[in-house]
Amino acid sequence: MSEKIKRNNVHFRPHFKTHQSAEVGRWFMDAGINSITVSSVSMAEYFAGHGWSDITIAFTVNLAEVDQINILASKICLNLCIESDEALEFLTKKISHNVGIFLKIDTVLKRTGIAADNIPEIAKLIKKLKTIPKLKFKGFLVHNGHTYKCSSSDEIKKIHFESLKKLQRLKQIFYSDFPGLIISMGDTPTCSLINDFSGVDELRPGNFVFYDLMQKQLGSCTSDDIAVALACPVVAKYPERNEIVVYGGAVHLSKDYIIDKKGNKIFGEIVLLKKNGWSRPMRNTIVKSLSQEHGIIFSGEHELFEKTGLGDFIGILPVHSCLTANLMKKYYIF
Amino acid sequence: MSEKIKRNNVHFRPHFKTHQSAEVGRWFMDAGINSITVSSVSMAEYFAGHGWSDITIAFTVNLAEVDQINILASKICLNLCIESDEALEFLTKKISHNVGIFLKIDTVLKRTGIAADNIPEIAKLIKKLKTIPKLKFKGFLVHNGHTYKCSSSDEIKKIHFESLKKLQRLKQIFYSDFPGLIISMGDTPTCSLINDFSGVDELRPGNFVFYDLMQKQLGSCTSDDIAVALACPVVAKYPERNEIVVYGGAVHLSKDYIIDKKGNKIFGEIVLLKKNGWSRPMRNTIVKSLSQEHGIIFSGEHELFEKTGLGDFIGILPVHSCLTANLMKKYYIF
Repeated sequence: MSEKIKRNNVHFRPHFKTHQSAEVGRWFMDAGINSITVSSVSMAEYFAGHGWSDITIAFTVNLAEVDQINILASKICLNLCIESDEALEFLTKKISHNVGIFLKIDTVLKRTGIAADNIPEIAKLIKKLKTIPKLKFKGFLVHNGHTYKCSSSDEIKKIHFESLKKLQRLKQIFYSDFPGLIISMGDTPTCSLINDFSGVDELRPGNFVFYDLMQKQLGSCTSDDIAVALACPVVAKYPERNEIVVYGGAVHLSKDYIIDKKGNKIFGEIVLLKKNGWSRPMRNTIVKSLSQEHGIIFSGEHELFEKTGLGDFIGILPVHSCLTANLMKKYYIF
Repeated sequence: MSEKIKRNNVHFRPHFKTHQSAEVGRWFMDAGINSITVSSVSMAEYFAGHGWSDITIAFTVNLAEVDQINILASKICLNLCIESDEALEFLTKKISHNVGIFLKIDTVLKRTGIAADNIPEIAKLIKKLKTIPKLKFKGFLVHNGHTYKCSSSDEIKKIHFESLKKLQRLKQIFYSDFPGLIISMGDTPTCSLINDFSGVDELRPGNFVFYDLMQKQLGSCTSDDIAVALACPVVAKYPERNEIVVYGGAVHLSKDYIIDKKGNKIFGEIVLLKKNGWSRPMRNTIVKSLSQEHGIIFSGEHELFEKTGLGDFIGILPVHSCLTANLMKKYYIF
């Protein structure tokens, strides 16, 4: 990912909300990355404490945390996102150190952000920003999270280019006043499937660090690219109904699921753990349901029943690695 | 709950997996409770460290944790659940201190447990247990988790009484050999909806400590009984599309949902926070979707938009309080 983005002459600001790990962060430092994205003030505090000094919180600013934001801004280069006059007025009064400000733009998703075609509102905020020395206008930030609902790579590409077109129009309008302003984009599906990033200034994918079954279903990755698995001990085996129960439930994996072609919910795929990694996902084998601490695995393969005893560990490839990693909080590496 | 169970002359062994809090545990101690249920070895360790000396791990024993189990069993009265000869053989070799053993029985759920009508298998295990001094046979334990899939209280009652009938048959068969054996049951829907527990020896409900929207939908409780809410700051308001976005997503609430009569997914209901509690849930107002850190609230009520500014906190009643409490790990009390 790092190489592809560099090849495009685009600034890479990876999102660290998936791994949330100082150690994994060091691998990025070793690859020459020096700026990152996070999704909360507490994540920014954590990574600031581990040597990161240029952080964007890609989440509409939470005004309830302005004191913590001021402390952080006194130590590192911090960028915030705003999308309303109310937030701008508040920050104008309360911010005590320089911060970078992105306008959060909504190009299609309707989650957060100012609609990209609401030029009067955008112009009003930018005009006001010009008069406030501590708030440095940085550019336009978008997150196309709706790519996660796409069913083909063509659809994902279409969203990206439509979104980019709207942002380029904004850049054109305001560029003469702010020659340094940038367009910041980039979810993992888009960054995985697109090779030409012309017109984009900064990309912020995060999930690609591990990938997961959701990304595999979207076509962003293959099973071989999934770099995290939950190790679960087998607690019961029911070969007569093709089921194995593991200690590994909603409090470990999270309850995100994908739906397969037959309409079944899938909460994970199963791999056999090896000394230095794991096998391909087993055929005809899925996590079919989860309760708080139990995972119920359906398997049509005798191999799984023969090879695993009670207390043995098997691996589960997660549906949504961000949520699984957030729940587990620790990693074992090979 | 405590009074109702005592009135029935049944032993109360509340499940602590919902709150997972030493402080909340003390409220139970103050009510005269001295034995508890947990769902993992680590939870047992936590509560053993906070003065609880009689703990059942109501989860098919995880043999991978036998060392931790031995340490715990050297300090407190610990009960484990087994359901296979493989586990029994393993424990016979590896257990170094006395533990109580429940046979986990499956009366309908097909999650874990020996089928209640598989008398030969049950007899075989009990016969073997008799010969192993460190493993003290305690009785039959069942968890009717399928009551969560019921759509009426009659259905829940039916499951309880059918399940109880099967357990009473087992008790009758093995009682002469083990006059102390007990029947241990009790999920929150059943314990909330049933008043006559004749024939049951021990009850283990847990969720009732907080309840939640799932329990409300099952009829186990009303909105007024829900005793935990997630306080979330408002980060954006979109009155034109009846939406408010809060900092509060899947990593705080979990992704469990209920489905309302119109077929909509609901991830939470909204309450206004007051100095000493909170309001009734707002009408026409729900958490309609969650991403990792965002919650999107739909509200048809102008009041919510008028009364809340950016940075203000609103309360979300969780769909599944066990998972929300597990994610948040801390409470503020009034």
